[in-house]
Amino acid sequence: MSADAETRHATQGADLAAPIRDEDGRLFHAFVEAVAEAIAANDGGRVCELAGDLHESDVGDLIENLEPDDRPKLIELLGKEFDFAALTEVDETVRVRLLEELPSATIVEGVRELDSDDAVYILEDLDEAERARILDQLPAPDRVALTRSLDFPEESAGRRMQTAFVATPPFWTVGHVIDHIADTPGLPETFYEVFVIDPAFKLLGSVKLDRLLRTRRSTLMRDILEELPRTVRATDDQEQAARLFERYNLVSAAVVDDADRLVGVLMVDDILDVIEEEADEDLRALGGVTGDEEISDTVLYTARSRIPWLLVNLCTAFFSASVIGLFEGTIEHMVALAVLMPIVASMGGNAGTQTMTVAVRALATRDLGGHNARRLVRREALVGLANGVTLALLVGLTAGTWFENPELGVIIGTAMVVNLVCAGLFGILIPLTLDKLKADPAVASGVFLTTVTDTVGFFAFLGLAAWWFNLH
Amino acid sequence: MSADAETRHATQGADLAAPIRDEDGRLFHAFVEAVAEAIAANDGGRVCELAGDLHESDVGDLIENLEPDDRPKLIELLGKEFDFAALTEVDETVRVRLLEELPSATIVEGVRELDSDDAVYILEDLDEAERARILDQLPAPDRVALTRSLDFPEESAGRRMQTAFVATPPFWTVGHVIDHIADTPGLPETFYEVFVIDPAFKLLGSVKLDRLLRTRRSTLMRDILEELPRTVRATDDQEQAARLFERYNLVSAAVVDDADRLVGVLMVDDILDVIEEEADEDLRALGGVTGDEEISDTVLYTARSRIPWLLVNLCTAFFSASVIGLFEGTIEHMVALAVLMPIVASMGGNAGTQTMTVAVRALATRDLGGHNARRLVRREALVGLANGVTLALLVGLTAGTWFENPELGVIIGTAMVVNLVCAGLFGILIPLTLDKLKADPAVASGVFLTTVTDTVGFFAFLGLAAWWFNLH
Repeated sequence: MSADAETRHATQGADLAAPIRDEDGRLFHAFVEAVAEAIAANDGGRVCELAGDLHESDVGDLIENLEPDDRPKLIELLGKEFDFAALTEVDETVRVRLLEELPSATIVEGVRELDSDDAVYILEDLDEAERARILDQLPAPDRVALTRSLDFPEESAGRRMQTAFVATPPFWTVGHVIDHIADTPGLPETFYEVFVIDPAFKLLGSVKLDRLLRTRRSTLMRDILEELPRTVRATDDQEQAARLFERYNLVSAAVVDDADRLVGVLMVDDILDVIEEEADEDLRALGGVTGDEEISDTVLYTARSRIPWLLVNLCTAFFSASVIGLFEGTIEHMVALAVLMPIVASMGGNAGTQTMTVAVRALATRDLGGHNARRLVRREALVGLANGVTLALLVGLTAGTWFENPELGVIIGTAMVVNLVCAGLFGILIPLTLDKLKADPAVASGVFLTTVTDTVGFFAFLGLAAWWFNLH
Repeated sequence: MSADAETRHATQGADLAAPIRDEDGRLFHAFVEAVAEAIAANDGGRVCELAGDLHESDVGDLIENLEPDDRPKLIELLGKEFDFAALTEVDETVRVRLLEELPSATIVEGVRELDSDDAVYILEDLDEAERARILDQLPAPDRVALTRSLDFPEESAGRRMQTAFVATPPFWTVGHVIDHIADTPGLPETFYEVFVIDPAFKLLGSVKLDRLLRTRRSTLMRDILEELPRTVRATDDQEQAARLFERYNLVSAAVVDDADRLVGVLMVDDILDVIEEEADEDLRALGGVTGDEEISDTVLYTARSRIPWLLVNLCTAFFSASVIGLFEGTIEHMVALAVLMPIVASMGGNAGTQTMTVAVRALATRDLGGHNARRLVRREALVGLANGVTLALLVGLTAGTWFENPELGVIIGTAMVVNLVCAGLFGILIPLTLDKLKADPAVASGVFLTTVTDTVGFFAFLGLAAWWFNLH
């Protein structure tokens, strides 16, 4: 929002004489230590010298690497040199705690300097009262823009958009636009396209800067504008916007309200964060970790956030155990069954997880949908059959030899084939069903799948054995 | 490379009268069917009408949704209307097979129209001989640029860069640069910054287009250039480049050779693909699926690509089984142990996977490194202890009641605590060690971890039981 953010930005390049990151991109330990020592000595000059000219991302990483108590001190010692944009680069837990510890006046001062998207990013983490208090102290235009953004739902495009943009009427010439840009102070720090709007702010199209520069000065904007069927609605989910950026290789995109009026612009750097976040969420969900867990969380917080998933799994584990319980007599009769049964269950689990991983990801990227679902279900069942037969031969031979009982080999082999076909089928059917039911397949697929592969594995193997050896 | 790609691009906007995607972003089945029917009827006019004006990404999705035999026919029927950039948007398997089926002349024609980064993307999938044949038929400047890109290692920045860029000497004025851009045909289709170079092509800095537009015409480029400590080396891994884009919110970045000469430019849209790919690779690796498996692969190909992982897991499953084998006598004596033992192993596996997921991802994003490793190992062990105790109480009570044997409850509870602490410890130590050894933690952590949690789980539970009930 302030124009001097730009001059600050321009000086950043030259100051990285001493590298602060190793070749893997991690901050040097010695650098972090040096800053920590300067903070301990309360040496503001030294802190500014070390961290004053860093890029906001580097400052963000530095904050995360400091001990929690040193973090507010760093901001205090940096004073005017601290760019609040750095707070958009740290983990949410770290940010929330820091914001609680900083005086309101400092936050107001810091937020005022930010682009609206960064300001929203910080304000949305505050509680209602504190947020209102800070908004009240901001200049009216900023306050209005931020309030409007904050009124959009969480994780919507409206929350992520920048409310400052460059827009012109359609009858301006290219030369006029270029002169206007050169002569107008306070334009947004970064922009990649000029929007063309009618008097009611309705979006007519956009002209990218490279196109603007390549066009004769006398040309009218209306004659070179690119119509934009690919605008983002402010209420759209940020993930939907991210897919649009990815699909059409966008660098920025107009955000419109329900009346098709231009209200802001989404930038690719914010979208990069969204894409990384969404991929991360899927990955964590598959691993049974909630999306917002961060490595800076405490032991208690982490333990508490992970236990629900373990409790759900505990129930399914007891359920599988009860299946085994049905065959206590059989196991007593032949202990080899107890030794071998985990093999059948775990191989089913592994094969099912392979299928599920592919399915969950393909659903997330919209590569799996109605039209090819049937083909893929068939493919997964057949892959399960093929690999089931291969594994059955290996397991059957090994188990048969180990316990000198060829019939046991045939039984475990058969159970293996049954379980791997089920694993393939349910590995894809479970995520598909959850997706149909509008549930997130990444979150719940795993627990259903393990229940199936464990239950089927134990039941097929122990059941076949009980039937065969009783009759035989 | 060709200037008319641009005019083609400008007309794309207006033609999406009928939407071809549903609100989730999937292609409408009816649309795909209509195209397939037109192809079956060999009706080129209808095909062009339906798909001629689509964005390259939409054409790419369309290709993937068609039956394999229809794909080359679509390209043939589209003729001049087919933009080869669409081939950069399809799965590798689909692309490789399509390229095999297309005549060389068509490929030459298509590649000639592409930006160098897209051309490289397509050429790198061809076999040596075919690639040489096509390069031979391209105009000399294109051939030289493409050959140079292809000489860089796979997955390097040099392969992903665009070799066309806008560069000026430092003594030009802003006005001169703006006029130069307006007057010079054949500039790259898209660019976000103008590079400033010395006569030997050594990179001095860059000026972003918005900055160029905001500066008075008389200013010299040398006075507004931003020095670039954040250039990418052509031999750098694409993932390294992606981290740089993410960290510093870049939209494009200069690529330099070992003598610091400007050789190309990396664009954020290519980096988006890299980021998505890398997150995907981690996710798949954790699920035991190789990175290049695609949903368009055949049953046999898929089965073959997944079996190695299953075989590795089979070995560890037999290893765990052999641990159970040590306690055959104990189990014979008390079958309840066989019923309960999978609970201990599987809860350890679940808890360990949570830790491992967080660790693998934090390593990939460089959030976990030397300085905080010790703190996190301690945290994970303590989280394991905390959740181990909670689960131990629940499992102990349930198991003790179920089998009317309180001592059995105590034993399974103790085993649970032991296994969950191990799960936490190894869940982070295994990825850390693999990372130290320069192996990819996402690929191999899972199999080591399951081995630990199964072995420890069975051994702790059965061993404790054997010791306790024999002595008792």
